[in-house]
Amino acid sequence: MTDFSSRHAREQLDHEMIMIEVNLDDCSSEVLGFTMDQLLSAGANDVYYTSIYMKKNRPAYKLSVLTTPLRQPELEEIIFKETTSFGLRFFPVSCHRLGREFYIAKTAWGEVSVKIGIYQGKKIKFSPEFEDCRALAERHNLPLQTIYDEAKNMAISHYK
Amino acid sequence: MTDFSSRHAREQLDHEMIMIEVNLDDCSSEVLGFTMDQLLSAGANDVYYTSIYMKKNRPAYKLSVLTTPLRQPELEEIIFKETTSFGLRFFPVSCHRLGREFYIAKTAWGEVSVKIGIYQGKKIKFSPEFEDCRALAERHNLPLQTIYDEAKNMAISHYK
Amino acid sequence: MTDFSSRHAREQLDHEMIMIEVNLDDCSSEVLGFTMDQLLSAGANDVYYTSIYMKKNRPAYKLSVLTTPLRQPELEEIIFKETTSFGLRFFPVSCHRLGREFYIAKTAWGEVSVKIGIYQGKKIKFSPEFEDCRALAERHNLPLQTIYDEAKNMAISHYK
Amino acid sequence: MTDFSSRHAREQLDHEMIMIEVNLDDCSSEVLGFTMDQLLSAGANDVYYTSIYMKKNRPAYKLSVLTTPLRQPELEEIIFKETTSFGLRFFPVSCHRLGREFYIAKTAWGEVSVKIGIYQGKKIKFSPEFEDCRALAERHNLPLQTIYDEAKNMAISHYK
Amino acid sequence: MTDFSSRHAREQLDHEMIMIEVNLDDCSSEVLGFTMDQLLSAGANDVYYTSIYMKKNRPAYKLSVLTTPLRQPELEEIIFKETTSFGLRFFPVSCHRLGREFYIAKTAWGEVSVKIGIYQGKKIKFSPEFEDCRALAERHNLPLQTIYDEAKNMAISHYK
Amino acid sequence: MTDFSSRHAREQLDHEMIMIEVNLDDCSSEVLGFTMDQLLSAGANDVYYTSIYMKKNRPAYKLSVLTTPLRQPELEEIIFKETTSFGLRFFPVSCHRLGREFYIAKTAWGEVSVKIGIYQGKKIKFSPEFEDCRALAERHNLPLQTIYDEAKNMAISHYK
Repeated sequence: MTDFSSRHAREQLDHEMIMIEVNLDDCSSEVLGFTMDQLLSAGANDVYYTSIYMKKNRPAYKLSVLTTPLRQPELEEIIFKETTSFGLRFFPVSCHRLGREFYIAKTAWGEVSVKIGIYQGKKIKFSPEFEDCRALAERHNLPLQTIYDEAKNMAISHYK
Repeated sequence: MTDFSSRHAREQLDHEMIMIEVNLDDCSSEVLGFTMDQLLSAGANDVYYTSIYMKKNRPAYKLSVLTTPLRQPELEEIIFKETTSFGLRFFPVSCHRLGREFYIAKTAWGEVSVKIGIYQGKKIKFSPEFEDCRALAERHNLPLQTIYDEAKNMAISHYK
Repeated sequence: MTDFSSRHAREQLDHEMIMIEVNLDDCSSEVLGFTMDQLLSAGANDVYYTSIYMKKNRPAYKLSVLTTPLRQPELEEIIFKETTSFGLRFFPVSCHRLGREFYIAKTAWGEVSVKIGIYQGKKIKFSPEFEDCRALAERHNLPLQTIYDEAKNMAISHYK
Repeated sequence: MTDFSSRHAREQLDHEMIMIEVNLDDCSSEVLGFTMDQLLSAGANDVYYTSIYMKKNRPAYKLSVLTTPLRQPELEEIIFKETTSFGLRFFPVSCHRLGREFYIAKTAWGEVSVKIGIYQGKKIKFSPEFEDCRALAERHNLPLQTIYDEAKNMAISHYK
Repeated sequence: MTDFSSRHAREQLDHEMIMIEVNLDDCSSEVLGFTMDQLLSAGANDVYYTSIYMKKNRPAYKLSVLTTPLRQPELEEIIFKETTSFGLRFFPVSCHRLGREFYIAKTAWGEVSVKIGIYQGKKIKFSPEFEDCRALAERHNLPLQTIYDEAKNMAISHYK
Repeated sequence: MTDFSSRHAREQLDHEMIMIEVNLDDCSSEVLGFTMDQLLSAGANDVYYTSIYMKKNRPAYKLSVLTTPLRQPELEEIIFKETTSFGLRFFPVSCHRLGREFYIAKTAWGEVSVKIGIYQGKKIKFSPEFEDCRALAERHNLPLQTIYDEAKNMAISHYK
């Protein structure tokens, strides 16, 4: 089951985040996937790709990396070493994060950790951890959605 | 016909706008469409989705919402309540908007309001209102493009 | 101006076309653009890319090539030689093409060829040739849309 | 509430369907949206757009329309009249559809019709009707997801 | 290192393949990723997603699964159980696959298997195995591209 | 061969760049391609399109233009004149660019300029110029990848 110690967190507003962006037009898909893994391992807060259209009939990808200023240099080094990029750009962003708590749903198939989102003191969101659901789905040979629905429903009922 | 009272507006530069962005990876398409409607009803200046690629083979969507600082809290509340998001980000943007006027094209099938874009005092853009064209196309069982072309051409001729 | 000799054509239904598709996951964007050019030069009827999502976090591209059976072998050879693909797939498609005629719009800035689409004997579509409009826009330093609108309107008026 | 009379249906395999496809590279987004509405009103089984990349740096759209052979001529006429297309292509497809039944979930906020999917005699899928959920969400000023989860859970519990 | 026993294969044309397609509009990204894994484990030849635009402002995904007729029933069952789909479609496709051989590049950092593509008897393509490159890149803390380029170059030189 | 005089440049950080963005929902693909050409000719540092989803079932495009503040007014004028946009937005970005040098690879088929990326004094990236490779590929009727691999390998070997 997902470890959730010390994962209780208050709602917060963080004005000191950085979004790095790079356009990649001669980098293979295999390298794109590997680079995402490297960036996440090195502590990036979020990493995603967007399909874009560049000059000369070139479909390409934009890499976006959300990070703290502290980790920015290390993540830029990974981008420059792994991809074909000769330049990147970045700009400051503010992040608004919900408060978070966890509830353990004891389903008939095993325990599932459910992440709860707290907005201005109210529990408004119940999100079963995907990896817990996946593990139980594979062990019991059940559709993932079945586990997910049951865990979510138990959490909602608990706090109703 | 589209109401256009008080829609004459001067060219302007607004440095106080906000762009909110959220990555959504466990939200169904039905909810995405509903959330867009809710945000527009609540006064968002613009709302759009971009398809993105997240970790663990997850195709997902980025929601972008352009707003004034005044409406930002209400729009954030809609995002947190309707979607599966546990966090969002935002950054300041400047907007440059053309001056706007309207011309009423009296076509053979009925009236169509044409929005005119004014750049540094010159009328450079003539854009028939889609909903007017749609209504006439449906009433007269004509291709929408036929109505659109006629209205645009009447506006261009009028100011030539 | 666009050469349009022998470009008058009747509406037709062709049941013998082939659509080739290839998923490309380790091919740079530069090579994708070059391959499109090579395929069009070699007589492909249409070529386009679609952004897709493959396993292992790999954003990739699907190449689609519409062709007659006669040209299929030559186009497959280009695909195998230029791209990283180890396999491709294809299936038969039927094509329904409108009848086509051309009208020469003598605008104030020069001549523009307008392609006319004919559906069951009726002229339903008027499409100014892009390259003609581009040439005049560049020569007279005008927005392309201005030339395009004028040429389209002259063709519509001519046949009204 | 959604009308569901005569919507009980058996699982079936239909080998006589047609998929129409058209690449659109000079058609505005407004017209794309309008054409989708027209095609659905005229009885298309499904309509969707895919973003594609064509020659000369042109991002464009592929329109896909799933239909019975009976409705194919009428849908082709709409495509030719409303869009800028001078040609379309189509190919035969087989469709495998689950059996369908409906359950009425009597939630605290009102009734929601839940569509049930039946695969080889087993109820495997429970899908609350979106429009029912939307109507209740708007009437009671609740997140749509709250209504959806409750209706789905009632249906799952009913058949457990 | 990648196992490549019995991976020598002749160039072939296979006219008996099936492409399954499903439009998914109320399925979360987590479930999309999980379903891809399940389909590949069950023997699908290829699986990919394409971002599409459906009615009612709903961005959605098309799932495409390439398979032999033999495995089609098992893969359809996974699709119906894991996703929200109430129906799928499929059509026959032909596949043209290059002949394949493998070369072991003994780089300074370790061995890398290089897949060679053979078209009409000629070796035209040299593709280092990604997982081999990844393993060496991680062990020696080098950019993946460095390993990849060296292995590819050794294979090209060997057959020159 | 590509001219590379005065193209040696030091690694640099530039905090004064501007990213302009515009959502375009009634602009044809032909005009999108033409506008990209106009913006690049007028000195934009980078131009790309992203496919987005707007209200009312409208697939649309976001145009992104990276520029210095100096060129911003001229580029805005092109956007307003060529596209259907009535407004655009922009925000400041910082750019981090690698140092650059060029190496001339004297391949068996002719010379290819290879761009070298320098990160903190180390040569980490070797990128053959696409147009040089394309010219040789066309002159010698060879796959572009063959030229590219050879030029890259010569540059890597030279500096090893």
